[in-house]
Amino acid sequence: MSESTVLSTTTPGRIALGLEYDGNAFHGWQTQPGGRTVQDALEAALGAIAGVPVATTCAGRTDTGVHATSQVVHFDAPVSRPESAWVRGVNSHLPDGVAVRWAQAVPADFHARFSARGRRYRYLLLNRPVRPGLAAGRVGWFHLPLDVAKMQAAADLLLGEHDFSTFRAAECQAKTPVKELRQARVSRQGELVVFDFEATAFLHHMIRNLVGSLVYVGKGKHEPAWIGELLAARDRRLAAPTFSPSGLYLAGVSYEPHWGLPETTVLPQIWSLEP
Amino acid sequence: MSESTVLSTTTPGRIALGLEYDGNAFHGWQTQPGGRTVQDALEAALGAIAGVPVATTCAGRTDTGVHATSQVVHFDAPVSRPESAWVRGVNSHLPDGVAVRWAQAVPADFHARFSARGRRYRYLLLNRPVRPGLAAGRVGWFHLPLDVAKMQAAADLLLGEHDFSTFRAAECQAKTPVKELRQARVSRQGELVVFDFEATAFLHHMIRNLVGSLVYVGKGKHEPAWIGELLAARDRRLAAPTFSPSGLYLAGVSYEPHWGLPETTVLPQIWSLEP
Repeated sequence: MSESTVLSTTTPGRIALGLEYDGNAFHGWQTQPGGRTVQDALEAALGAIAGVPVATTCAGRTDTGVHATSQVVHFDAPVSRPESAWVRGVNSHLPDGVAVRWAQAVPADFHARFSARGRRYRYLLLNRPVRPGLAAGRVGWFHLPLDVAKMQAAADLLLGEHDFSTFRAAECQAKTPVKELRQARVSRQGELVVFDFEATAFLHHMIRNLVGSLVYVGKGKHEPAWIGELLAARDRRLAAPTFSPSGLYLAGVSYEPHWGLPETTVLPQIWSLEP
Repeated sequence: MSESTVLSTTTPGRIALGLEYDGNAFHGWQTQPGGRTVQDALEAALGAIAGVPVATTCAGRTDTGVHATSQVVHFDAPVSRPESAWVRGVNSHLPDGVAVRWAQAVPADFHARFSARGRRYRYLLLNRPVRPGLAAGRVGWFHLPLDVAKMQAAADLLLGEHDFSTFRAAECQAKTPVKELRQARVSRQGELVVFDFEATAFLHHMIRNLVGSLVYVGKGKHEPAWIGELLAARDRRLAAPTFSPSGLYLAGVSYEPHWGLPETTVLPQIWSLEP
């Protein structure tokens, strides 16, 4: 097997994959002894095509119940297969609820996680008195009216580079709590409140914790400035509880253009407003 | 119990409900000996609130796997309950995957099916080489490129009042195959081809049969004029096979304004194009 940079799809080498999945169908991304995770399903399907065990690395590990429209994964192909085998062949071995969208040969120094320059997440929050029916498991839910303008004012305070310890899960393994938040947008689309976040990277539970505290602002429990105080305090105990995973989607991972990967951002939706 | 027109929500009388459900969670609308249909779940939940058995009638019976963003149902409430009991109370007794959106007292001559002046359905067709992952069970799928302009030209031939026998299932129980199609729109939204149909009423399997034949036009197997020939032939054997139920949504039912019901149209979506 070559250890040099391999760009052809017909020789062994590193392959990047774009992946989508329904978080309800799996126990999160990361492999577990009992199986039933996205990684377990993907590695089993890749192994069936490769004929030998294959190990994968993803751009952003997702928790149980969290979805992806656009996860990025890499693995080292021990055998030569056409690109279509890594898409259609693998999909024929994957269960419902997960599919490879694309496969592309990449240089050996590409790394799905360490080469990523940004992650895009969307949170869909159903904001109406009635719990979700059709969209159960695909949206978060809050029953009281939310003031989106106040939530946006609060979200603006999160932009830029900050120590996000207040919004970090106790079990987070990141080396540093300092992350750069490049987008924090809150918009109403009918019954949905849509949160769009982009950052270099996120801490464990960071978005679900941010959504929880922004909902506190939206329902009027706190003014927008409270979010700035939370951030400055660096104390998880002050923030709101972690919000449900059901509304969270990994919606895109960005890489430098020289890797030549497809545009990956795909924004989930439940209902459309236009006729 | 009063048999007169009852408008108050605090006395017995006829109640209309708006309902949404995930077709994957149920064996269709209509009650079955084994249960597990939407009607069975709804009647059990209504019965739990009413304290006695309750029978329901819907605007449009949906098959197994077909979804609703906006089904309309009526029943005769044998007891007085506040409207909130028919929404939140009933929802607390319904399984995941179905929810009552609204409840409203209506005159005793309102009938969810016979008073309806139109039904709106949307079909979401994932049109890409790769099978659905995140949207499995929520979209139909076709892997080859489709020419939407030709499909729209074909769909235009269906507008107006026609005998739709060509697109009627053998087991259809409608009194007449003549229906008035008021909207037949085909549009591309990224990876999705979206079909919007509105008619007085639809025959059994009519939309899934129309989608199947429009896909034949879209992939170039036939020219748009073929749809006109099919319609004129009134022969089911000439049309394409019935398409999957997974992409079909009952998206709205229209009634005359004097009934005072809420606007019911809610258009399903999977991904949005705008950032």
